[in-house]
Amino acid sequence: MTAKLRDVAEHAGVSVRTVSNVVNGFAHVAPATRQRVQASIDALGYRPNLAARTLRRGRTGLLALVVPEVDSPYFADLAARTVRAAQARGLTVLVEQTDGDADREKRLLHGDRAHLVDGVLFSPWATTPADLAARTDTTPLVLLGEHDGTPGVDHVAIDNVAAAREATAHLLAAGRTRVAAVGVQPHSRNATARQRLTGYRAALTAAGLPTDPALEVPVHRLHRADGHQAMHTLLDSPDPPDAVFCFTDELALGALRAAGERGVPVPTALALVGFDDIEDGRYSTPALTTVSPDKDRIADLALDHLAHQASTPGPPRSTTAPHRLLVRETT
Amino acid sequence: MTAKLRDVAEHAGVSVRTVSNVVNGFAHVAPATRQRVQASIDALGYRPNLAARTLRRGRTGLLALVVPEVDSPYFADLAARTVRAAQARGLTVLVEQTDGDADREKRLLHGDRAHLVDGVLFSPWATTPADLAARTDTTPLVLLGEHDGTPGVDHVAIDNVAAAREATAHLLAAGRTRVAAVGVQPHSRNATARQRLTGYRAALTAAGLPTDPALEVPVHRLHRADGHQAMHTLLDSPDPPDAVFCFTDELALGALRAAGERGVPVPTALALVGFDDIEDGRYSTPALTTVSPDKDRIADLALDHLAHQASTPGPPRSTTAPHRLLVRETT
Repeated sequence: MTAKLRDVAEHAGVSVRTVSNVVNGFAHVAPATRQRVQASIDALGYRPNLAARTLRRGRTGLLALVVPEVDSPYFADLAARTVRAAQARGLTVLVEQTDGDADREKRLLHGDRAHLVDGVLFSPWATTPADLAARTDTTPLVLLGEHDGTPGVDHVAIDNVAAAREATAHLLAAGRTRVAAVGVQPHSRNATARQRLTGYRAALTAAGLPTDPALEVPVHRLHRADGHQAMHTLLDSPDPPDAVFCFTDELALGALRAAGERGVPVPTALALVGFDDIEDGRYSTPALTTVSPDKDRIADLALDHLAHQASTPGPPRSTTAPHRLLVRETT
Repeated sequence: MTAKLRDVAEHAGVSVRTVSNVVNGFAHVAPATRQRVQASIDALGYRPNLAARTLRRGRTGLLALVVPEVDSPYFADLAARTVRAAQARGLTVLVEQTDGDADREKRLLHGDRAHLVDGVLFSPWATTPADLAARTDTTPLVLLGEHDGTPGVDHVAIDNVAAAREATAHLLAAGRTRVAAVGVQPHSRNATARQRLTGYRAALTAAGLPTDPALEVPVHRLHRADGHQAMHTLLDSPDPPDAVFCFTDELALGALRAAGERGVPVPTALALVGFDDIEDGRYSTPALTTVSPDKDRIADLALDHLAHQASTPGPPRSTTAPHRLLVRETT
């Protein structure tokens, strides 16, 4: 016999509502109660994602995580952690890839999965503040990653400006004087690259150095191939940099490969810092210095936000997740 | 006004059934007809994944792709390609991660997503032939990757035995005589590692060389950390290998890092071959020689299988996707 929500409630001596709150990860359950309910769930082999559906219309136990690219190591890592964090709350995550396509982002934003899921975790690329303002779908929504001037939407991100400033300051503190930035995206709607550029410039200014347009290298995408090409361009310039801050680890790993091809030793002649702390950078030779966003915390905060929206209607909230600079062998 | 299937059929001058066949990527539509229907779909801005649902009960325009780890570069790459291949057929893929957990694999196998999706592409880790034989859910299902003795289930995979034999033969042809295999998984239910070991041994035997248990290194998982540790173990042995065939690129990249830490030059003192052709291996220094499964073809074949099951009931089919050895700088 399959255990029902009611069976768990009886077994734990609590209300059906309380079991539901535990299953859905809502915050306002006392830890002792939560523990008792979880013990009953385990004892009865209760499967929340099927049975919770009967609680009220629209409760499916499923969440959507919408990302531009599932094969970007950063998003793949974040997705795997989000799946596990949700699993711990009895929720299942379905991962969806938009390729950053504006139409697909818009359709998802406006409820294309509303009948399937209880909430959407959304990492937008092409979505504009106007798209967000025009949203009428009421499925709980949390944006992941930075987005400029987002009205009326919950939001979890790290402080990209501060992180980029720290990464650049780390290079300057080591005595580097010509620090390039690889990852500028002048035509992108995504705010992340813009904020990392702001942090980079702020560090230069704080050190009394001018910003130099020749050292701010635009890229098409944030992939290895782009970093590889950007590094070759920089090394071809009349006055090459002695350090590079790359806006993603993928860019930095492409740049590292290019430096190797040109016989430029890292870190002696060229220091490199990436961003994202993907596993790849831990095993490269030399291992990559990088900014590590706390991805487990981002996943947990995002789930907290969804649960809070479902339980406590109120104004949208923004939460900043922590990050830290991991110094390895490229600096 | 939202375009309906019927509108597309009228616009294209074909039956609703034909539009549905095009939308679902069924094979038995003449190319000219397919083209005409696609033009009408584009002209009317028809959204198959919503409207196709009205065609018959259970048609959602959604597919599930179930993988053990979304953050494994191989599965992330395969997932991204599958999403795009499905997109080209007007279908949406939801990606789900099992962590190779036997219970979750079993629940998905037995219909945990049956009400949401039209088909399941499933890369199992812990599933046994008995689990498959016990399946009663009728949602179209295609297994991705090797699985020993799978009864009654469609199947798309590369020839892992042949691929591993070629990778090992490539090392032997270069004059290497002590070729290790990293990636043996004696306790795993997954057949992939077993088949790659079979291919490795076959190549040794064909070259008149004995197999040596000391050169067959078991690993816990197929990740970078496992390859890193395995390589250190091999280099600590009294008679280290002059070449290593790793069963995944992740293992090989971990091994490459370990070789660098020990000052063992690659490829001169140690040649390395990986498996999977993940992007990471294209940008490592030295770039990784690897077996490249045709992932686009795997995705396309898997979708063909689903469409075929939906349109033409019949006995299960197995299809082999192509692979090739990419020789780069580690050999």
